[in-house]
Amino acid sequence: MTRLRRRAPLVHNITNYVVMNITANALLAVGASPAMVHAVEEAAEFASLAQALVINIGTLSPRWVEAMELAAGAATRTGVPWILDPVAAGATAYRTATAGRLMKLKPAVIRGNASEIMALAGEAGGAKGVDSTRGSDAAIDAAKRLALATSAVVAATGAVDYISDGTRLAGIANGDIMLTRVTGTGCSATALIGAFLGAGLPPFEAAAAGLATIGIAADLAIVGAKGPGSFAVALIDALAGLDDATIAAKMRWA
Amino acid sequence: MTRLRRRAPLVHNITNYVVMNITANALLAVGASPAMVHAVEEAAEFASLAQALVINIGTLSPRWVEAMELAAGAATRTGVPWILDPVAAGATAYRTATAGRLMKLKPAVIRGNASEIMALAGEAGGAKGVDSTRGSDAAIDAAKRLALATSAVVAATGAVDYISDGTRLAGIANGDIMLTRVTGTGCSATALIGAFLGAGLPPFEAAAAGLATIGIAADLAIVGAKGPGSFAVALIDALAGLDDATIAAKMRWA
Amino acid sequence: MTRLRRRAPLVHNITNYVVMNITANALLAVGASPAMVHAVEEAAEFASLAQALVINIGTLSPRWVEAMELAAGAATRTGVPWILDPVAAGATAYRTATAGRLMKLKPAVIRGNASEIMALAGEAGGAKGVDSTRGSDAAIDAAKRLALATSAVVAATGAVDYISDGTRLAGIANGDIMLTRVTGTGCSATALIGAFLGAGLPPFEAAAAGLATIGIAADLAIVGAKGPGSFAVALIDALAGLDDATIAAKMRWA
Repeated sequence: MTRLRRRAPLVHNITNYVVMNITANALLAVGASPAMVHAVEEAAEFASLAQALVINIGTLSPRWVEAMELAAGAATRTGVPWILDPVAAGATAYRTATAGRLMKLKPAVIRGNASEIMALAGEAGGAKGVDSTRGSDAAIDAAKRLALATSAVVAATGAVDYISDGTRLAGIANGDIMLTRVTGTGCSATALIGAFLGAGLPPFEAAAAGLATIGIAADLAIVGAKGPGSFAVALIDALAGLDDATIAAKMRWA
Repeated sequence: MTRLRRRAPLVHNITNYVVMNITANALLAVGASPAMVHAVEEAAEFASLAQALVINIGTLSPRWVEAMELAAGAATRTGVPWILDPVAAGATAYRTATAGRLMKLKPAVIRGNASEIMALAGEAGGAKGVDSTRGSDAAIDAAKRLALATSAVVAATGAVDYISDGTRLAGIANGDIMLTRVTGTGCSATALIGAFLGAGLPPFEAAAAGLATIGIAADLAIVGAKGPGSFAVALIDALAGLDDATIAAKMRWA
Repeated sequence: MTRLRRRAPLVHNITNYVVMNITANALLAVGASPAMVHAVEEAAEFASLAQALVINIGTLSPRWVEAMELAAGAATRTGVPWILDPVAAGATAYRTATAGRLMKLKPAVIRGNASEIMALAGEAGGAKGVDSTRGSDAAIDAAKRLALATSAVVAATGAVDYISDGTRLAGIANGDIMLTRVTGTGCSATALIGAFLGAGLPPFEAAAAGLATIGIAADLAIVGAKGPGSFAVALIDALAGLDDATIAAKMRWA
């Protein structure tokens, strides 16, 4: 966290309309410098200027997909690490196909809920719109297989967040069920992993750091929250207040 | 509300950029599962998977209008109830024409402010951008005529929210003037009606339930609010805390 | 402020996705009536109905740029004052070119951070994505030259907000560093200047009033804030509570 705040990486996001605001605020809270840039005319140029790229397919359309592919391609070519959030992959043919094409462009990390990770691994994942109908435990094997198939680190998040590079498996038990009641917390988790990638952490460590960070912030934010509205506000406050000592003290491996 | 929380309907939204975040959070707060999906490539497929569809024309462009028409058509064909929010109909020719075309695709409910409902009914409604210059009382006749012309239940909201199916008229007096100071509360009211449609309520009952829910949540949220910022946070908390007993105790018919 | 609240100007915004919600809420908090309208089909029509127009290039694409040019052209022709926020000008060729074209359409005010104002004035401004790497002091000369070149009032904001019309220079020292940790506060400052333009203030006075308003609201909001989340909520509350007496008492000229 100290390293992230000191480096203040520029994180390029091509993400969905619903969560752009909370994603930008989560990134600012941990000291990153977020920018949302999606035009075909500038996405590749911008991606190669950034320290990390976050691609989230929550609200798709053809020109955006084109920009995502240009940005991901430019990032991979110039050595900028990038992370894919395959929102609602498995729910429609368009999403599954788009996520599949992006996976081929060498993301460093893929983060999704159980349904999404299972769909990308070729299993029936039971997506209900953007929500998962399956616990993250059900996606452990899928995460491992997807990691082996793509060479990406894969994170399947839920009550426990599982991270696999095909060989290693880590589980993080921080977080609160209230995270599922606020839109954009999963997308923000993806962006935070992007921030740690941008700060120079290797993919497995960046995934663990990002997921621990939002999970611990949620553990702190739930205290005193009166509902999802005040929880969301407290979550940003908690992210801004986190330091390495607090993370070390509160991290719970599963 | 118990029924809504138990069914957790998937609510497909094609709505405007400004309010996507608060709309998603309002839907999550009452136990629905919101998804925002607007691409022509998947809007019809997604609409037929959902339990309800919400179409809001707040920020329009041609490809979005095309997706709205595809989604509304698919919803009507497959028996998925849908609701239309004709934001700023009457303010520009493009909006009035778009709302007019969507009205023909058999929405179960239309919800607007007085100016919008009057414009759709063919009266001069005095729109000032997205805000109404008229009280909801002025739109009672227009609501009735629009309901008869479209076979939709029509809700004209304001200090009192009026609901008409052409024969019956109900008025709900809950709510607070502060709702007009937070962007997206009208759009969220529309989405909540959509959630009740998705839980299986008939259109008239869904409109009453949705408007009572946000009105009562506002009655609770205004207590202790220091301004529109803290009110908006408390509104989401109140929506998440509402149960049937509270609604029955606090509902005020006009 | 009294004048603004009484006139309740309709402020037309073509702005970026990330900040639409906070911008609309900031405008509502000071009594303006915001509308976000970007379609080529209606942008010019809507601009000429409004009392002011705000153009912000934060998230660009070609059809939006076309709508911005149509709206700005219509505003200038019909005497509607407009303000340009050249987000991340200097960061990519597309942004610099777009901002350059819009500048020619006679904005009444241009507001940016130091990097953006320096880039528009033809200097190397050191943009890092959407954030400035330079203090606002570094942009005073650029602001003056840009004002002379465009006949617009130019505001370069930062720890001190500088306003120049090419001859006069004012500096406002209100505000708090926390404003840089919440996305959309700069964009909201631009929109507030737009609101004061819409209330009939001349450009220099509108720029001073808008920047003083958000700066003083930040001075009030930081008291008791636990981080950027609660600060953002308190900022909207503070904007809604501001009156002319408070502004006069708390304004700090630099």
